[in-house]
Amino acid sequence: MTFREPVSLKAVNALRQNTMIDHLGIVFTEAGDDWLRATMPIDKRTRQPYGLLHGGASVALAETLGSVAGLLCLDPEREVCVGLDINANHVRGIREGIVTGTARPLHIGRSTHVWEIRIEDEEARLVCISRLTLAVIPRR
Amino acid sequence: MTFREPVSLKAVNALRQNTMIDHLGIVFTEAGDDWLRATMPIDKRTRQPYGLLHGGASVALAETLGSVAGLLCLDPEREVCVGLDINANHVRGIREGIVTGTARPLHIGRSTHVWEIRIEDEEARLVCISRLTLAVIPRR
Amino acid sequence: MTFREPVSLKAVNALRQNTMIDHLGIVFTEAGDDWLRATMPIDKRTRQPYGLLHGGASVALAETLGSVAGLLCLDPEREVCVGLDINANHVRGIREGIVTGTARPLHIGRSTHVWEIRIEDEEARLVCISRLTLAVIPRR
Amino acid sequence: MTFREPVSLKAVNALRQNTMIDHLGIVFTEAGDDWLRATMPIDKRTRQPYGLLHGGASVALAETLGSVAGLLCLDPEREVCVGLDINANHVRGIREGIVTGTARPLHIGRSTHVWEIRIEDEEARLVCISRLTLAVIPRR
Repeated sequence: MTFREPVSLKAVNALRQNTMIDHLGIVFTEAGDDWLRATMPIDKRTRQPYGLLHGGASVALAETLGSVAGLLCLDPEREVCVGLDINANHVRGIREGIVTGTARPLHIGRSTHVWEIRIEDEEARLVCISRLTLAVIPRR
Repeated sequence: MTFREPVSLKAVNALRQNTMIDHLGIVFTEAGDDWLRATMPIDKRTRQPYGLLHGGASVALAETLGSVAGLLCLDPEREVCVGLDINANHVRGIREGIVTGTARPLHIGRSTHVWEIRIEDEEARLVCISRLTLAVIPRR
Repeated sequence: MTFREPVSLKAVNALRQNTMIDHLGIVFTEAGDDWLRATMPIDKRTRQPYGLLHGGASVALAETLGSVAGLLCLDPEREVCVGLDINANHVRGIREGIVTGTARPLHIGRSTHVWEIRIEDEEARLVCISRLTLAVIPRR
Repeated sequence: MTFREPVSLKAVNALRQNTMIDHLGIVFTEAGDDWLRATMPIDKRTRQPYGLLHGGASVALAETLGSVAGLLCLDPEREVCVGLDINANHVRGIREGIVTGTARPLHIGRSTHVWEIRIEDEEARLVCISRLTLAVIPRR
């Protein structure tokens, strides 16, 4: 088990309030012992000028999932995590429907995490794959 | 000169309509012969749960700038460009105000472009640095 | 099946001659229908000043595996592939023994490939994870 | 000034002994207050099977330069640095001569550094551009 305790989707979705997460229509939908899943709609909130899903929306979904998954591993009274860097390959253009992203841990260290985030379309075809590096920082 | 012709900010801003670009409050503000600049506000459209600028918003700004700058190099009747991959380092957390991103070319080839995007705060301190790889594709 | 034909390790290892691949002690050891594996020793050919495996050696192994795997998907009379970009997270320092890298496809398109390369130590613990983007180019 | 003291190229080149740095023919040639430069030959130590400079050699040069530059910012009795992750775009194939890499700081924080490394050919054309993220770790 990577997460500290069983994930409450209600509590995780409460984080969306007044943030970009809500503004893009991202909703946390499922979680396991060490993975977290969310969906994002393809509409005018997330499209680029050609009508395709904006690559930046995919990365926003990836960074959201990896950061929140990282947070779920920590004791919130003692530590926080921040994104150091992220990379993403866009492998399939998509115009409609929703995408589903899933974050899974590649490395959970004391001072850094590395998360992989896969984003798929409704036929489970890969749309984007991303890796996020987090720094774990003691609260002062 | 990398861009095909002097940039009309009005025409570039017209691309925002019904897209994530407009939804995040990104506005194109300045351009040169080979560089393009835009601003993005830090507010509930672009914040993460701690109240900081969401790293995904920085990457969305970077991907927007690099993709549109790439487009400005092409003959729109013959070619389009799509983002292959992007990376970004988040180097400074920021809570308020606006950020300004500037895209500059690192490589303009016939079939690929590489753009660097620097995002700075109002004191011109680096917030995020990103590199976007584009594929140039003939229109069918 | 992603590769064009069953892989001959003898033929693949013949590519090493007079290259960095041989110079670093990399040897191709195993292959499947769509994956390729190689080993690399940790010694003065691949160490950095502190005595650890050099991160650049890990990336050289990753780029070698992904590029050769890409090549094995192509008709060599009609196409070649070149590395556009690579990224890697170094997740575990290691001082001795050998590492084993395995390349697997994330995306095999007509004009680009994306390969994931995992590098592990002798206890199968993750040392480095990398993603390589290749351009497929018609031979002239 | 980012480096702790004026750089002794002799001392920096002494780090090469029994490492991959020496094995690839990398030599530190020049340094300023906050930048470090090295050369690498293109020969059978650094070529891939097509006779071009191996992308992994470029990344090994980049990681070498960024890591050593990072080290030059630290008090060696109190801290060390390790590479967390690296990315690189390969923008020009090259068959002969030497390449020159230069590392410059993008961010020097207490716990992380970000370095940019540009690698150029003998006509100062960009061959590869890379970004390295380092973690600064207290010595125990």
